[in-house]
Amino acid sequence: MTGYPDSVLNLIESFKKLPGIGEKSAERLAFAVITDMEKDDVESLSEDLKKVKNNIKHCKICNHITENEICNICNDKSRDSKTICVVEDPKSVIMFEKLAVYNGKYFVLDNLISPLDKIGPEDINIENLINRIKNEEIDEVILAIKPTIEGETTSLYILKLLEEINISNKSDKKLIVSRIAHGIPLGVDMEYIDSLTLELALQDRKKVS
Amino acid sequence: MTGYPDSVLNLIESFKKLPGIGEKSAERLAFAVITDMEKDDVESLSEDLKKVKNNIKHCKICNHITENEICNICNDKSRDSKTICVVEDPKSVIMFEKLAVYNGKYFVLDNLISPLDKIGPEDINIENLINRIKNEEIDEVILAIKPTIEGETTSLYILKLLEEINISNKSDKKLIVSRIAHGIPLGVDMEYIDSLTLELALQDRKKVS
Repeated sequence: MTGYPDSVLNLIESFKKLPGIGEKSAERLAFAVITDMEKDDVESLSEDLKKVKNNIKHCKICNHITENEICNICNDKSRDSKTICVVEDPKSVIMFEKLAVYNGKYFVLDNLISPLDKIGPEDINIENLINRIKNEEIDEVILAIKPTIEGETTSLYILKLLEEINISNKSDKKLIVSRIAHGIPLGVDMEYIDSLTLELALQDRKKVS
Repeated sequence: MTGYPDSVLNLIESFKKLPGIGEKSAERLAFAVITDMEKDDVESLSEDLKKVKNNIKHCKICNHITENEICNICNDKSRDSKTICVVEDPKSVIMFEKLAVYNGKYFVLDNLISPLDKIGPEDINIENLINRIKNEEIDEVILAIKPTIEGETTSLYILKLLEEINISNKSDKKLIVSRIAHGIPLGVDMEYIDSLTLELALQDRKKVS
């Protein structure tokens, strides 16, 4: 006997399925739904949840989340279609788009290679990237994957595949493959930098005079 | 242009209506709905939200939240129906029930008196409590309202009303009115106690030998 009506108990259990929501937070949210929120807002939340789960799929071209067959970014004619930025998940695309520093196209991997989790090279959706490179006019592929063990393994694997394409490519025009720079972020105290980042920053040092 | 499909943007906005959920948390929750959560769990959350908002009403007797006309606690014949504990909101009832230290009935106020917020004695649902005291066989009313300015004002107001009932009551049996004790909680370092609590703890001191 907890004093809660059944429907409130169910709602609390449902809220607890969301990440970072424990018992106390779920109770607080349930009370907000009962007492503080407008009925319209609750209805909207309820509908939006269902719509997102039912309507969101992956773009046939770049694998980013979309409501249509092809996402807005792939459909955008004003963007540079000769550059593909390879990222590890849709969140990365959102982050790039928010910061508005890139105007090319994307390719979203399904996973990063991780033998411990039994995720091999065949599970990362790489064929679609290779097909795009073979069939579209691509000048450059930018690898923008986080520099963890899984990320680096995946980057190296993709790099090797793309080198093979370049070797078997008989034309003069070779595909450029680049990697985003890893190093010290701006505005950060040097004492808080981890050793791997510092090592990468030293390796990738630039001659300035 | 944020890179989000419209339905995801809508869901993020809806999540932000919940208390304590800002932009970043809402985005994280939306991504969890898209990628991590089972479809069934999302459907349940969606349905539970609607059910709670549509079905939860207030008990006709005690004003606690319930799905029926009368709540489970008021319907429970095994409870002591001669004692009413007056609390400020349904959350307090839940808290009492969880700690399982009280076996009487409850009465939930609509508000605490707060002149600054234009909440007067007529807005706290006090008539229903008075009617219960006049019509049921009540031995004791326990005031369990938090000791803030609004809480104390409300407690004093209710105390005065109940004294008037006792004065006009011609029978020998008088209504007992009590207040939960305020003081130092167990297991707390004295240095962290605020002055108001310490003052109440001194005022309510008990002779022990």
